[in-house]
Parts: sequence; structure tokens; C-alpha cells
Amino acid sequence: MPKAVSLMSGGMDSTTLAYMLKSEGYDLHLLSFDYGQRHLKELVAASKLAEGLEAGHDIIILSTLPGKFAEGMPGMIPDPLARVLSGSSLTDESVPVPDGHYAEESMRATVVPNRNAIMLSIAYGVAVAEQADLVAFGAHAGDHAIYPDCRPEFVAALGNALVTGNRWDEGNPVPNLIAPFLDKTKTDIAVIGQGLGVPWEKTWTCYKGGAIHCGRCGTCVERREAFRLARVEDPTPYEDNTYDPPAP
Amino acid sequence: MPKAVSLMSGGMDSTTLAYMLKSEGYDLHLLSFDYGQRHLKELVAASKLAEGLEAGHDIIILSTLPGKFAEGMPGMIPDPLARVLSGSSLTDESVPVPDGHYAEESMRATVVPNRNAIMLSIAYGVAVAEQADLVAFGAHAGDHAIYPDCRPEFVAALGNALVTGNRWDEGNPVPNLIAPFLDKTKTDIAVIGQGLGVPWEKTWTCYKGGAIHCGRCGTCVERREAFRLARVEDPTPYEDNTYDPPAP
Repeated sequence: MPKAVSLMSGGMDSTTLAYMLKSEGYDLHLLSFDYGQRHLKELVAASKLAEGLEAGHDIIILSTLPGKFAEGMPGMIPDPLARVLSGSSLTDESVPVPDGHYAEESMRATVVPNRNAIMLSIAYGVAVAEQADLVAFGAHAGDHAIYPDCRPEFVAALGNALVTGNRWDEGNPVPNLIAPFLDKTKTDIAVIGQGLGVPWEKTWTCYKGGAIHCGRCGTCVERREAFRLARVEDPTPYEDNTYDPPAP
Repeated sequence: MPKAVSLMSGGMDSTTLAYMLKSEGYDLHLLSFDYGQRHLKELVAASKLAEGLEAGHDIIILSTLPGKFAEGMPGMIPDPLARVLSGSSLTDESVPVPDGHYAEESMRATVVPNRNAIMLSIAYGVAVAEQADLVAFGAHAGDHAIYPDCRPEFVAALGNALVTGNRWDEGNPVPNLIAPFLDKTKTDIAVIGQGLGVPWEKTWTCYKGGAIHCGRCGTCVERREAFRLARVEDPTPYEDNTYDPPAP
């Protein structure tokens, strides 16, 4: 049985990707990440979705401790990695999560520097250890404009680096890095996921991490728009389901 | 003042690199990693060395939790990332650390899959957040034969991927990834470090993590050999300072 290690945020894209890989016959190991993001609810969503998929699921926790506590580490509670990746509204309480359209400049405030390279490098290490066939993640065409680490040239360059860094002289097989939604819109993903029976009500998107989806942050706006354009019924309760910012 | 984020294991190579960057006028932020390796003593060594260098120093802790505990995370003590990167003698208690010459096949058992890509991706994220000029690590020519993620082609490929993944359309400045010792032997590094006044007695090399250096594991053998060939006095107490395996 072929094996895939796939990033799993608990949102629409990575969940649809997991359902797609499962439908293609892959044994799935899903990885979620806790780096101090506000929306820890996504980890609970990811866990329940993994259970439904009968997939392996681990949460990788990235944290940090000032070096001076090296000797006293057993008693210390480390900070999330966010402390040294500050500046993003996803992790830094001092930066507000912006409302608005996903494709706007302001959404750059939601970037954790180098997040995809970090997550994919760890996923690749797991895949090498488990002799998996591929490492997958759900970057899609709508991400390109904002995030350089969601662009096809980044995926190609990182895939090349990871293969180069793990291939012994004898040319042992190494996992491939794939992002099958790179040329799909989020609307396409809603259509694909609907066809695969993705339980949308179990997915979590909102960056604000409240009791229910806010409906106003960039990712909520994008989620609502994707369902509407795909003509897929959106089962999500939103605090505000009328907010409609102009496209950028 | 130019700024550098540099990987710091507490061993000879990364310590010499830190002293070199300091001598070149860089403001230093050193990063060490705790992924569950046996030789946690290296983190204490790194911390004391960083203090002597008056450098910033953080320990990045990579750990993991089975996904099913997502909801109960605050009460859980996660495992080191080693649990999902098993198979290496550096992290897996069931695999013995081999004695012998560093450049042997058997040393592959000491490999944590994709370790350098993981550490460098995190270091790069920190460097982007801090607008540092470069990310540096101490891979050297003696590493090439064993570890594909210490080869020049890997460093070039990963550097390209990290720049690609962090450069916005307007071509914002991004850190460079460098490994200045790629064409140096460990003997060269001993000579360079001696010239820079590296306090060798504070560095830690041994993979076994005992009270003192074992003198027999691959890295101890390499350390002893480097000092001997460089004609630099080796201040290290070893459990066994006579063991001399044949070169491979």
C-alpha cells in the first residue's frame, strides 16, 4: 500500500487533499502543527477529521526556550515558536487579525515567516523515516498572490532540495513533494471535496479562533466565497455571514 | 550592524563558525535544537558558549503528540520529535551508538532524517522575522561522504528554495543561507578556531552523552583526530583516548 504524509490544518484544502489521497489508496499519516497560532481549534478539528479518515495523525509542537535555561529544562514550560517568529497576527497577540478579502495586501500580516518550508521539512523527515512515497500539502492557486511559499516555483525548489538532501550515493528512493491543488482555485477544491464526501461541518478555517467562525477574517471570507461559487451548501455557522468586502 | 542567525550544536564546527561570524562583526542569534537527541549535554555547552560570545541564544524544542490528544493538550507532556523520526541512534534508545571512524557506513545510523533542512528552515524563519542578513551552519567537507544534507548541492538547493519562498513580488531583501566550512576539513576548522580563541574545553561533541567524552564514537574519534592533525592541544578528557579505529 503506498504511503503519504500530508499536512493537515483542519481546513477545507488540506482536508480535501486527505480525502483525495485516501480515495487514491494511500495509507495516510497526517501531521498538524502547533507553533502558537491563535486558532488551536483547528488542531481539534484536524484530530476529528483524521479519526474519520482512519488516518495516522500527529501534532508537531514547535516551541522555544531561552538558551540560558538549558540546564533547568525539565522544569521549564517553553514558549511557542511564535516568540521568535513574532510579527504575525497568527501568533502575536499584539497584531490584530485583519478583516477583509483574502487576496489583499493586509493579509500579509497573517504570514508566519517560512511556515511551509518548516512544516514540509519536518513532514519530509517523517516520510523518510517511514519510507513513505510522498509528502503532500494543499497550497492552491488562490494562495499564490499573497504567499511566496505557496507558489509552484517554491514547491519545485523545495522538493528539489529535500530530494537532494536525502538521497544517498546509491540513489535510494526518496519521497516526492507534491501540491496537487497548485493550479486549482478554492472553488475547485470545494467542488472536489464535495464529490469526495468531505464532512465540511467538521472543518475549521477561521484565523480568529472564536467559538464559531467569524465570517469576516480573510480565510472566512474566502471559505464563504468558495462554497457560494461552487454552489455547494455551506453548513458553517458564522458570527457574520453577510460581510462582503470588495475584491482587491 | 549586520545580523546572522547561526545553528549552534555546542560542538567544534558550529562554535568555530560562531566565533568567526562574531569576528566579522555580526550580531549573533544562535539557535540550538532539542529533538530528543541523547546528547542533551550539547545544549548546556551551547548555552555557556553563547554566553561567552554575548550572543542571543534560543533552544528550539521539537516535540509531538498523538493527534487524538488535541483537546487535552494543556495537560499532556509531548514526546520528542524523535518518536516520529525513529530509527536513528541519536534519538532511539533501541539503536546503539556505534563506535568507529566517522566516515564509515555504520555512521549512517546516527542520521536523523532531514535534520539540516528542518533546523535551517526554522532558522530561516527566525532570520526573516528579525530581518537578519544571513543564516549560517557549520557543515564541512568531512561530512559530505556520509550525510547528503551536508553537501554543497544541498546547501545551494535549500538556499534557493528558502529565498524563493520568502521573496515577495517587490523583491524584498531576504537572508542568504551560507555554510562557509563546506570546503574545509575538521582539521582546518581546528586551526581556524584556535586562531579565533575558541574555548575548546567548553565544546561538546560526544554522541553518547556520558559524563565525559567517550572517545570512541564517530564524532569523538573525529574530534581527537582533528586536534591531532591540526597540532592543536586537545583539552578534552576522554573515557578512552587511545581507541584508534582504521580509516574506512
